[in-house]
Order: sequence, then C-alpha cells, then structure tokens
Amino acid sequence: MIIVMKPTHQSDEDIQRVTRRLEQMGYRVHISKGTERTVIGAIGDETLLQSQPIDGFPGVERVVPILKPYKLASRDFQPENSLIDVKGAVFGGTAVQMIAGPCSVEDRGMVLELAHAVKETGAKFLRGGAFKPRTSPYAFQGLGEEGLEYLAEAREQTGLRVVTELMDAQDLPAVMKYTDVIQIGARNMQNFRLLTAVGKVRKPVLLKRGLSATITEFLLAAEYIMSEGNREIILCERGIRTFETSTRNTLDISAVPLLKELTHLPIIVDPSHATGKWSLVEPLARAGVAAGADGIMIEVHARPEMALCDGPQALKPKRFASLMQDLKQIARVVGREM
Amino acid sequence: MIIVMKPTHQSDEDIQRVTRRLEQMGYRVHISKGTERTVIGAIGDETLLQSQPIDGFPGVERVVPILKPYKLASRDFQPENSLIDVKGAVFGGTAVQMIAGPCSVEDRGMVLELAHAVKETGAKFLRGGAFKPRTSPYAFQGLGEEGLEYLAEAREQTGLRVVTELMDAQDLPAVMKYTDVIQIGARNMQNFRLLTAVGKVRKPVLLKRGLSATITEFLLAAEYIMSEGNREIILCERGIRTFETSTRNTLDISAVPLLKELTHLPIIVDPSHATGKWSLVEPLARAGVAAGADGIMIEVHARPEMALCDGPQALKPKRFASLMQDLKQIARVVGREM
Amino acid sequence: MIIVMKPTHQSDEDIQRVTRRLEQMGYRVHISKGTERTVIGAIGDETLLQSQPIDGFPGVERVVPILKPYKLASRDFQPENSLIDVKGAVFGGTAVQMIAGPCSVEDRGMVLELAHAVKETGAKFLRGGAFKPRTSPYAFQGLGEEGLEYLAEAREQTGLRVVTELMDAQDLPAVMKYTDVIQIGARNMQNFRLLTAVGKVRKPVLLKRGLSATITEFLLAAEYIMSEGNREIILCERGIRTFETSTRNTLDISAVPLLKELTHLPIIVDPSHATGKWSLVEPLARAGVAAGADGIMIEVHARPEMALCDGPQALKPKRFASLMQDLKQIARVVGREM
Amino acid sequence: MIIVMKPTHQSDEDIQRVTRRLEQMGYRVHISKGTERTVIGAIGDETLLQSQPIDGFPGVERVVPILKPYKLASRDFQPENSLIDVKGAVFGGTAVQMIAGPCSVEDRGMVLELAHAVKETGAKFLRGGAFKPRTSPYAFQGLGEEGLEYLAEAREQTGLRVVTELMDAQDLPAVMKYTDVIQIGARNMQNFRLLTAVGKVRKPVLLKRGLSATITEFLLAAEYIMSEGNREIILCERGIRTFETSTRNTLDISAVPLLKELTHLPIIVDPSHATGKWSLVEPLARAGVAAGADGIMIEVHARPEMALCDGPQALKPKRFASLMQDLKQIARVVGREM
Repeated sequence: MIIVMKPTHQSDEDIQRVTRRLEQMGYRVHISKGTERTVIGAIGDETLLQSQPIDGFPGVERVVPILKPYKLASRDFQPENSLIDVKGAVFGGTAVQMIAGPCSVEDRGMVLELAHAVKETGAKFLRGGAFKPRTSPYAFQGLGEEGLEYLAEAREQTGLRVVTELMDAQDLPAVMKYTDVIQIGARNMQNFRLLTAVGKVRKPVLLKRGLSATITEFLLAAEYIMSEGNREIILCERGIRTFETSTRNTLDISAVPLLKELTHLPIIVDPSHATGKWSLVEPLARAGVAAGADGIMIEVHARPEMALCDGPQALKPKRFASLMQDLKQIARVVGREM
Repeated sequence: MIIVMKPTHQSDEDIQRVTRRLEQMGYRVHISKGTERTVIGAIGDETLLQSQPIDGFPGVERVVPILKPYKLASRDFQPENSLIDVKGAVFGGTAVQMIAGPCSVEDRGMVLELAHAVKETGAKFLRGGAFKPRTSPYAFQGLGEEGLEYLAEAREQTGLRVVTELMDAQDLPAVMKYTDVIQIGARNMQNFRLLTAVGKVRKPVLLKRGLSATITEFLLAAEYIMSEGNREIILCERGIRTFETSTRNTLDISAVPLLKELTHLPIIVDPSHATGKWSLVEPLARAGVAAGADGIMIEVHARPEMALCDGPQALKPKRFASLMQDLKQIARVVGREM
Repeated sequence: MIIVMKPTHQSDEDIQRVTRRLEQMGYRVHISKGTERTVIGAIGDETLLQSQPIDGFPGVERVVPILKPYKLASRDFQPENSLIDVKGAVFGGTAVQMIAGPCSVEDRGMVLELAHAVKETGAKFLRGGAFKPRTSPYAFQGLGEEGLEYLAEAREQTGLRVVTELMDAQDLPAVMKYTDVIQIGARNMQNFRLLTAVGKVRKPVLLKRGLSATITEFLLAAEYIMSEGNREIILCERGIRTFETSTRNTLDISAVPLLKELTHLPIIVDPSHATGKWSLVEPLARAGVAAGADGIMIEVHARPEMALCDGPQALKPKRFASLMQDLKQIARVVGREM
Repeated sequence: MIIVMKPTHQSDEDIQRVTRRLEQMGYRVHISKGTERTVIGAIGDETLLQSQPIDGFPGVERVVPILKPYKLASRDFQPENSLIDVKGAVFGGTAVQMIAGPCSVEDRGMVLELAHAVKETGAKFLRGGAFKPRTSPYAFQGLGEEGLEYLAEAREQTGLRVVTELMDAQDLPAVMKYTDVIQIGARNMQNFRLLTAVGKVRKPVLLKRGLSATITEFLLAAEYIMSEGNREIILCERGIRTFETSTRNTLDISAVPLLKELTHLPIIVDPSHATGKWSLVEPLARAGVAAGADGIMIEVHARPEMALCDGPQALKPKRFASLMQDLKQIARVVGREM
C-alpha cells in the first residue's frame, strides 16, 4: 500500500513514527520525497490493514491500498470461472439460466399452476418467497414454512430446482430441507450473521446486491460466505438506489461485465425488482443477456392485478414464454446458449 | 387515495373494473373526469393498500396515497413528543443527551478509562460495540459477550447508562442483561426479524437510519418495532450514501427538523460515522444541536491512532470535553439544556 | 391536480381560501373530505401551476399534478415516433444508427484516418469534439473552429454526417456551418440559454442527459428546445451519477425503454462516457441495442494510449468493426436493422 | 503520482514501456515490485496528467494522483483565509454575512419593500434574481434587465449590496453595471464558458455548488475562474441531489468544515434551496452558522403564498428578523460575529 503524509507532517520524526509502526506490522518500507508530499510505500500483506488500520495515525493524509480487499472472490485468486452446478443446471458455464416464478407464494394452487407454466418454457429454476422482507409491517409477510412445502411440491411435480429466500439463520434448517438455492435478499446483503450462517452449509447461495452496496462491498459480502467454506455463490444485480424515481431502482447493467472482470463467480440479473414495472422487464432481460449475464431472474404471475406483492412488475406466463424465445437468440449472438 | 387512469383506459368499462375492486375492498369512490385523465378518489382505510395493492390493476397509471404509510410513529397519531426515560436521563424533552465512547470495546482497561473520562464531561451515556458489523470478514469483529461484561463493569463504576449494538436476535438475552439502550445499526435497519425481536422487549431502542433509507422507510422501520409493542425508540441520523466520497457518508442534517415535524420520536445525530474524520466531528456536532437534535453520539478514543476500528473518526477525551462546553451554549440558544 | 390539505387546516375557511384562489386561476374545483385529510381536486390547465404555483399557500400539505409537466415531448401529445432524418439516415425508425469517432479532434491526420475507419464499418455518423467542456482548466480544451474544419474535411472525404458539441450560443454560427447534428453535452443539459438558442435553428439536436437529471427534467430540457420551434431532438442516455465509483457513471439502461414509453423522440446510448472503460463499452453497446435504443454513440481512437482526452474509454477501430457485427445481429432479434 | 500495473502486465518490457513514457514527460521514476503488483512512483509536475493522461496506457490498472487537481483554490497554495471585501462587508473574516431577499424580482414594489425589511434586520446583502434558470420553459423566467434596475434602485435606497445571478456571458455587461456580487447558479457550475467570462472581470463571484458536483469538482470550478485572474470567489453549499426526496435537495453540511480545510475561499450556506421548505430553513441556517459557515443566504418574501417562484421555501420578513437574533448568538459561541 501507499501512505501519503500530510504537508504539515514532513519531518523525519513524523515519517519515522509511521515507518516504525509499519515495520512492527511486518511491512518492508520505502520512502519517496516529492516536492509537496512524502509518500511511503509499504510492501507486505495488505489484509492486515483491515484488522490493524493505519489511517488514524498522526500525520497520515491518505492510505491507498494497492490490492482489492477481497481475495477468495477475486479473479486474481482464481482466474477461471466458478461453475455452480445445481442438480445438473450450471451457472457460470456457457448456458444462461432462467429463474422464474411469483414474488411470494400466496397459496398452493397458484404455485403449482405457475410451476407448470415455467417448466413448459424450458426454464430450470422456480423462484418464490415464503419469508418476505417487507418495508411495512402491515404488508403481506409470506406464508412461512407452509409456503416452503408448496414450493417443494411444485419441485416434485415439475423437476424444477427451487430458489427461495432466507431471512434469518433460525429458518436455515427449514429452508435447507426444501430449497436448492438459498437466496439472500438485498436488504440482508450486509447481515453478516446471516452470511456467516450460509457460509457454513453446503448449498449454493444466490446473493443479491444491496440497494446501496458498491461493487467492492458486494464482493466482500461474498467473501464473508466464502471465508466460512461455502464457495458456491451466484451474484445477482437487482438495481441500486439513485436519485431517479421513475423506476423503482436503477439497474446497474455495467456491473455485469465489470463483475465478470473482477470475480470468477457467476452473475445474474433481476430486471423485475430493478424496475418495478413489467413493461420494462422484457427489454432489460434482453439487455442483461446481451451484457453477458449468466442468468436472468424474472417474476411471473398468472393474475398480476391480484398479486399480494409486486404485482406491477410481474409478467404473465404467456409473455414470459415469448420473452424466452428472444433471449435464446441473443444468447446465441454473445456465444452462449439457453 | 387517488387513482389516476392511463389515457388508454378511459372507457366506462375500464373505470368500473377499478371502482368495483375498490368498493369490494370497502372504499367509498368518487370519479372525476378531466380533459386528459380520469381520476378516481377512494375514501377509506389506506393501510389496506399495503396488503392488497391496486397499482398492478389494468388501466391504473398511478396510485397516490394521501396519508403516510406509518401510523404509530406519526405525529398525526401522537402530537406531543415521546419522552424516552433511561434511568432518569430523558430523550425528547428539553435536555440534549450526549452518548460517547469507543467504536468497539477492545479491552477492559480502555473501556474503564474512557468511561471515567466520559463521566467527567457530564455526559450520561457510554457507547461501545461488543458485536461489530464489519464490511470485511477480515476486520476485527468485536469481543462479543466479554465486551458486554466490560461495559457493565464500566456502568457500575461510573453510573453511566450503556448503549450497545445488537446484531442478531440470538444475542438479545445477553444484550438485555448488560445494556440500557439497544442499538440497531444502520446495516440492520431493514433486518425485519431483528426489528420484530426488539419490538417484543421492554427496553429503549436506538434505531440508526440505513445508509440508503428514505425518511419514510426509516419511520416504517420504527413502526415495525412499535407495532410489536415497544414504543421507546430513539432515532439516529448517521449519514446517508451519496455520490460524494470526500466524506465517508453525507450527514443529512435536514432530517433532524423534518423528523421533528413528522414524528413524536426523539432524533439524535451521530457525526462520527457520518463523516469518518475527527476534524469534522466537532463542527457537525455543533450543527446537530443547532438544528434541534435531541442528542449527539460521538466516538471517543484515548489513542485513536491505535484503534482497531474507526480510529480516524474518534475524538480524544480532552477535545470531547471542550466540545461539550460549546454544545451547552448552543443548546441554550435553541431553548435546550445539557 | 390534487391538493391535499394539512391536518391542521381542515376548517371551511382554510379550504375556501384555497378553492377561491383555484377558481380565480380558472380551475373547476371538487372537495373531498376523508377521515384524516381534505383533498381538493382541480380540473383545468395544469401548466398554469408552473407560472403560478400553489404549493406555498397556507394550509397546503402537498400538490399532486396529474399530468406530466412537459407536453410537446410527450407521447400523449404525439403517439407516433418522431423520425429525425439526417441526410437520409433516420433516427427513430427501424434502423439503429451508429455514431463513432474520437472524444476530441486532436489534429487533422487523426480525424481523417478515423473517419475512413468508421466509414468502412458501415456507420453513418462521425463524432468529434472541437469545443471540449473539461472539469479542469488545465485539461485540453479542444481545437475550436480549426477542429470543426477538420471534421468538415472528413465529412467531405467520407460522406459521413458530423456530430459535434456546442458549448456556447456564440459559437452557434460556426457550428451550424460545419455540423449535421448539434450536440448539447451533459453538463449543459440545463443551460437554458443554450437550449433556447438551438431551439431557434433548423438542425437536429443530440441532447445528452445531465449527470443528475431525472427523466422528467431530461424531457423538460427537450421541451425547452421544442417550445422554441425545433422539434428534431435525439435524446442520449450517457450515464448518471450514483454512489458507485468503480465505473465513471452508471448507465441507466432502464431509461431507454422508459423513454420509449414517455416520449416520441428517439433515444440513443453512449456507453463510452457512461463507463469510462473500454472493456465495458462492448457489452453495454450490445445491451443498449437489446434494450431498444435507436442508436449507439461510441468513442473510437487509433492510439487510445496517447489520446488527449478519455483514452481509457476508446475502442480501437478493429474492435469497433467487430462490435458492429454483433450489434447487427442483436438488432435483428429485436426487430431492427443496422 | 503512483501507477499500479495490471497483474497481467508485470514483465520488464511492460513496465519499461510505461516508465519510458513517464520519463519523456519529465517525471523521475521509481519502481517497486510487490508480490502481486508492480507499482511505479513518478515524481514531478502532476498537473501534466490532465493534459497528457496516462491511464489509457497498456498495462496500467490505476493511476493514483498524490496532489489535489486544483492549485490556486487550495489551502496548500495559500494557507491564510481569502478575505472578500464587498464595499466594506467582508466574507472570510470573523463576521458571518447575511444575504436575504426574494427568489426572483417580481415587480418594483416588492423589491423595495423587501429591501427595507432586510436592511432593518442588519443584513448587508440583498439577493434577487432577474434572470431565472427554470426547469420548465413554461415557468416564470424573470424580468431581465428591468429586474436589475429595480435591484439597483433598492440598493440606492438602502445601501444594501446586491447579489444577482448571471446566466449567460452576453448579459455580463448589464449585470456588472447593477450588481455587487455576481452569482453563478448551481446548474451553471460547470458552464465553463461562463466561468471563464467571470474570471476575466473584477467583481466578487458567488459560486453555487452543482447539484451533483463533488467537492473536488466544485473547487475545480473555482479554479477555472481563478486561473483567469479573478480570485474573489465565495463558495456556496446549497444542497446536493441524493435518493432522498422528502426534501428538495440534501444540504451537505459536512462540506462547510471540509471546505474550510481544503481551501482558503469563504463558504456560505443556502438553506432555502437545499430544503425547499420554509419550516426547515431556520434550523438549517442555525446549523450552518454552528458548522462554521462564513455566511447564510436566505429567501425572504412578504407574501410567499403568491410568489411566482419557490414560495414554499421563503421566510416572511418577521421570522427572518427573529432568526437573525438566534444566528447572532450562535455566531458568538463559535467565535464569530454578525
């Protein structure tokens, strides 16, 4: 890392105080005096900085790390793509995976009906929330374990793999029993206890980016899970919070190719939550595949006007089926398949 | 609420489909046809909208609620200030309360030393983290229950009230035993399970605003706690995430007077986390009191350069003591006392 | 529009004060008393609100307009797409147009060389800045009129149409002489004098979205130009400013399909300025076409490492040519052609 | 500056290609090979970087400048405060200056009436817009030169110094004739032609921060003016654009003490535009003085409910007079006077 000294702290004593500290920490040090600033280069293990920070030291203007703060998640650490195999359907390979289903499991009939509709389109994953994180305490909070059972029944009938959200480590045993992929929602991306809990199990995790999480924080959240042992993580870009309010969030489409450079983990796109408006979901799903996403997650509902949650952003099964046709063709243009 | 119909859905049939649905839900309906849009007014219980949304209905362009989505937290509901009494030190009255202490409890000696220093300044609350939410898995994660014991010892020696963070409902019994105020951190403001858990106990909650939480979402998080029965909530503005990176976050000082209008709950300011830079903490603490805050929370550390967490934003005890003098005078100008 | 009265202003007198004012302004008024708020509906010309605002009136809590604040730019006003014909190359029809060239005109040789390279790929537009808005006064500011002459020479040699930026109304005669499309840069999107000036000429305007402009403000900027008489406007999404700093800006890809719904004007995408990083330009260009953009604007430079401006975001001519092949195929999938 | 090489470009040849280029540009170079990255230190004139950027060079991962990109505006360059003397009323000294008046000059009577009211409170500056930048072309655009004449008349009658906005360099002669301080509005903070124009005259400039301008960009805008010769600049924090919509903008109060560290130029606060709501203006004006602002600019209007512009954010003269009393006391606490 590089340490820039304040213009008011350029004396030998000021500088030695810092270099002594760095040497105690095990760094090899090099001093470079410019006309206006002294810069100290420190060679050694930068992760030490996180447990023993140096930026509060007297005279230090700025500390510039050279390396990324995450390691296991980094493409420097593992150059080839991680392949996350969920019962034969792989994220991170040449296939683009589709995950579809309702925002929340409302009753048994609707889940089974939708599961069959999703199955017919060729998608391999069924999504559906049994535990729902809702901004208002007065909103529908999900069916809980009953919802998980309906999802499991849908899985049995269709062979679809199930993706469902875990909100609390206490529900982990129940969710483990019924789901194929554990979803961590955007609002829990920095719920570090939850990350640690899913890091200890052996099941793929779909980690959604937090509303105001930087790319670095997103990868550090993945690092939390990986550092506990679970390396099967699927990242999901689902829109960030910006000043623009005409869409629910702003889909950060650049995150897709950027994450493909920075990490070996697969990255998928959720255009439904990003926009909150079904008419925008189709063009953004196309954009996601064109930008190189490893999968697309879409909300589908047979009667969006009666949905208990996020109706305005759900596609009807028929439109979803037709969208799948477009996505297949775009996938082919970018050297992928569906 | 007001429902605006799309220009493409202005036929009697389109409109009746919506009014029938509204009438089924128990609303009284009034239709107003303008030259370019039809507007439907619906009079009745708006909270229904959250469990049975109408914005996905065919032909609906926009739904405009008239009331706020929170109720218990609203000043409409309770016009007079809530007074949160913590062993005789009250938030929300004429006094401005000071909370001071280290970011994290590092060892027994430092907590006791700081507690005495804080006590001497006249502050009544000691802060200190035993469980630390850290962006990186490689950063210091806190001493856990051992840290809570040191805080309790400091409380015994000084009579200060203790404020410490709860990260997971599983730790609630331990935290309840040692703390006087339970802190919910910014990253957990929408950890709805945690909110529900602290809603069920009888101990004041210090609820920090999420990094990207709107004022409405902040009050809905308070509503989560209140709807479970616990009405003793102290709100805390601690900076929001914006495009500006020269400070750690952007202190939303307007939130202070705005929240005083919208809610009866007390609101305090944390300038340490907002700026991440000790030299900005003093002017912002002054600004907080001048803007009408009910309290100020500040990180104090005897040797910030060696702190395991957030050293650059901590004040030394001496500066903190001198800051207290200024704040007392500003408090007097705005009709408060310290 | 809808006027919501404050809970403290529910008396007949309070309400009549507002309704009288509305009736004076020519509105037809309807009063609706709910249990907690009185709501006043006002039917009439809402644009009046902009010159005679009512939201400062005593007792008014909120004014909710029903219509959009722009008219000429709205798809309500003109349902069919505007076709902007630039010497036979049309924006807004089935074709997706490509605009390519250097960030700034650096010398005669480089412009001519690049123009020929662009021409060969099949693109019909050459971009290049002669007047450069630069954040720092010490950065290269462009060649001025000399740069315009080189662009004109390139146009003559290749038949490409020229797009160049206008920074000040004083340069309008010079820019009019040499360019086929006048570009208004992001930093000038709310330079209302400049908008008024280009509204008075007869030449297509490429209007870039401001870094922090909402979609509504973007369309109001177009409305400024249109209200002066010039209706040939091409909108350009080029990234907005958000908290994310790992890309230069955040490309708001949702803006593309959203603008197609709200306005009849064509909308193109500039992935170069949005990301600031050439390796992200290709996937985002593909995403732009997939999302339904009417054109793509890309920076191309033969020796990006020596560029005086924005080198890191420029594609080399060879890569650009190969990208064109992909874009053509994606265009076909979404029912367009290139 | 520091250049970090990509992990894929660590060969001697890769590194020499960069060092050769740096040496050609006149830098002295030092290479430091770590375990995972090679870092090149370059000592010399960093401003060169702006006209001859190096970040597009093959193999360069990142360029880290050590110095600030502005110079004349920097406190490194001039450690003592700039004192901007406007006919005896000084910004940047111990006095806190008040600027008050209507958003826009609506007619002669209102300006004269308000000017006398402002004068009586002890404030020394009258603000008022004759040229108004408005988001909508249908909003009131100001009286133009007629408005300037009314301001001049008010100045003559009261002795107040006049602050008014310049929107276009063409109006500079007229504005120079009538005003004592030239205001550059937030939307024009990066209108570089306008900055250059006011840099060439000899009259103090009040430069408002752009809605999405970083602190660095704000100081670079000041640098534009200063590099043309005019060094009399008063900075003005007036709120930035964030995700929060319950206030018009978010007042970045931290910018006040931060700018006092970074620059020698005075910095004032405009709480009226920041919040858009008069009830928040008073607490934020108090906060501004408490945070160390060199002045406060406030909109005052005798009949805000009839104002043609920004009525909801204007204070009535009586409230303004009483606010002045509070501000005087807070000024004293922070070692200032009014």
